[in-house]
Amino acid sequence: MFKLLATDGKARRGRLETVHGNIETPVFMNVGTCAAIKGGVSTKDLLDLNCQIELSNTYHLHIRPGDKLIHDLGGIHKFFNWQRPVLTDSGGFQVFSLAKLRKITEEGVKFASHIDGQRMFMGPEESMQIQSNLASTIAMAFDECVENPSPYEYVKQSSERTARWLVRCKKEMDRLNSLPDTINKNQLLFGINQGGTYEDLRIENMKEIAKLDLDGYAIGGLAVGEKTDEMYRIIDVVEPCMPKDKPRYLMGVGTPCNILEAVHRGIDFFDCVMPSRNARHGNLFSWNGKMNIMNEKYLNDTRPLDPNCSCPACKDYSRAYIRHLIKAKEMLGMRLCVLHNLFFYNELMQKIRDALDGGYFESFYQKYRLILGERNPD
Amino acid sequence: MFKLLATDGKARRGRLETVHGNIETPVFMNVGTCAAIKGGVSTKDLLDLNCQIELSNTYHLHIRPGDKLIHDLGGIHKFFNWQRPVLTDSGGFQVFSLAKLRKITEEGVKFASHIDGQRMFMGPEESMQIQSNLASTIAMAFDECVENPSPYEYVKQSSERTARWLVRCKKEMDRLNSLPDTINKNQLLFGINQGGTYEDLRIENMKEIAKLDLDGYAIGGLAVGEKTDEMYRIIDVVEPCMPKDKPRYLMGVGTPCNILEAVHRGIDFFDCVMPSRNARHGNLFSWNGKMNIMNEKYLNDTRPLDPNCSCPACKDYSRAYIRHLIKAKEMLGMRLCVLHNLFFYNELMQKIRDALDGGYFESFYQKYRLILGERNPD
Repeated sequence: MFKLLATDGKARRGRLETVHGNIETPVFMNVGTCAAIKGGVSTKDLLDLNCQIELSNTYHLHIRPGDKLIHDLGGIHKFFNWQRPVLTDSGGFQVFSLAKLRKITEEGVKFASHIDGQRMFMGPEESMQIQSNLASTIAMAFDECVENPSPYEYVKQSSERTARWLVRCKKEMDRLNSLPDTINKNQLLFGINQGGTYEDLRIENMKEIAKLDLDGYAIGGLAVGEKTDEMYRIIDVVEPCMPKDKPRYLMGVGTPCNILEAVHRGIDFFDCVMPSRNARHGNLFSWNGKMNIMNEKYLNDTRPLDPNCSCPACKDYSRAYIRHLIKAKEMLGMRLCVLHNLFFYNELMQKIRDALDGGYFESFYQKYRLILGERNPD
Repeated sequence: MFKLLATDGKARRGRLETVHGNIETPVFMNVGTCAAIKGGVSTKDLLDLNCQIELSNTYHLHIRPGDKLIHDLGGIHKFFNWQRPVLTDSGGFQVFSLAKLRKITEEGVKFASHIDGQRMFMGPEESMQIQSNLASTIAMAFDECVENPSPYEYVKQSSERTARWLVRCKKEMDRLNSLPDTINKNQLLFGINQGGTYEDLRIENMKEIAKLDLDGYAIGGLAVGEKTDEMYRIIDVVEPCMPKDKPRYLMGVGTPCNILEAVHRGIDFFDCVMPSRNARHGNLFSWNGKMNIMNEKYLNDTRPLDPNCSCPACKDYSRAYIRHLIKAKEMLGMRLCVLHNLFFYNELMQKIRDALDGGYFESFYQKYRLILGERNPD
């Protein structure tokens, strides 16, 4: 059940009530691909980072350790000891980006596992079955994510097929939620809008899938090759066709500035591997903009990464120490940087929610779109 | 100042008072080579693991980030935010094992850095200067660690040179501790007994260095190629020549069973990379003996690694989950296993101290030498 608590222009302050607790939106989902966050970060750490909802990857967990095992162990929440909401993606993105020898038909996708080459098949029903076994809070529809740019005719055929797949996803999810040994019988299903960078396809697809009255809607197929302005243009075009009373999720996006811009355009949910991927190379987010801790000037800098941050890294360690750890390729360096970046993303969302609650989002947006934008103090 | 609180046979319960607090012995020092514990473990984590004293490596820190930098930042305690004692090794072991193109003279050792091949020199004075810059609680004497077996004549010459080096170490340490800009003017110095597996050389060397009235004495050059029984034989031979009123440190040893056997033979201090190195491969210590979490039988095992353990991994996560993490090569898997193994080592020492305090060490020893020995429930 999604409640809209406040709006400011297109920006929305909402709350999604789930069996695993409430999700205050706008929200950033912390990505734990294989039921573990990169950088040695545990679900216990996620509590310290004020993470509201974790995202795990269906494809990865299906292949290893297997969704049936996780079902037998009581579902993903018990598996990695996390009581708050979990969203699982559909596996589609990985099938199309990681797996080899894939062949798409109306039925679904034949592919070879990226681990051992084993031949596998995934279609809408299989994706729902796997996600039902995982027993996540929110399941994502099985879709084809087409990279940008792709030919108009291909994108048209693909997004129409994805819409037909969505009907099958909903039917299968309804069936699974009614079975006696289903762990989470209240599993939610979000549909995914596709259509590449073609405005007419995006609009047609969004109108079509909106009719299915799903628990939420995502915009997929962005941040996959197109320019940032093009991404914003597509959001602007799709958003008016999205149901106002359902949560909206912009998949795989993005930088702090991208998120702020998308909230301003009416988006509620986000996820991205950027906080952990950047951390690995010492690229850190701060309330003064970006910094790279490898920079020589931090060699003997005893200040925390961000003097305005209260994350576990900033509370206890200096720039000089963390720079040393990253340069020495110590795992602890990556862990501290990931903790910092994830804390920053979660705090950014908290500040956005505070601004919406307090009625000053527009001025917050105008200020931080510059600070979090391209300007770089390094 | 070392106080002997209780004895049971040769086993000793002691307390070393330092400027960074007391060290209750027997004690295991948790190894953080580059001022960071492998497996993404921070000094804050070490507090949760009940670690009393951390060990850092002089050679590594000299090369990166540089001991002068650490001095300018206020010493290693400030650098990695750790208030309890730190022991630094002399750099000798790494100069002889890691560095290339080394040439030994009476003066010291010329070598090439293992990082960038830069030509460097380290002798007794340089080692003391570096350790004084690091400002550790306990500095180790600069020695040559000869691998076993080595020819009698070489070991004789080497251990005699190491003894001459020790005189220079003491002189230099006294000088450094009297300088105004020395951070820890109470830095302690432990001498190191050498002599390979030759009983006469070991005894002669130990008697010689005991005369220097140092703050503690280590047995070096063991666990470097000889059999375990040979190691115990050397300890048995050297121990009677070690001052009773000084702490004794068996360098780089060992398995839980090795440690128990060495405590039984009168040793107080230990360090070893085994807890973290084993953890990387899923080899875990438990109060029922060793286990390898990769074993198929743990696939769906919802119990903690060790039901009798209260470490951060056992408190929150199952064998099935940790097995999955290690198999998926997730950094979190290694971190949880390292936390478990280090906690186990620290708890082992606590139980040994409790047994000595309680006057039941001999029965504890007889029971756990079997449980912690070669028997393996896998």
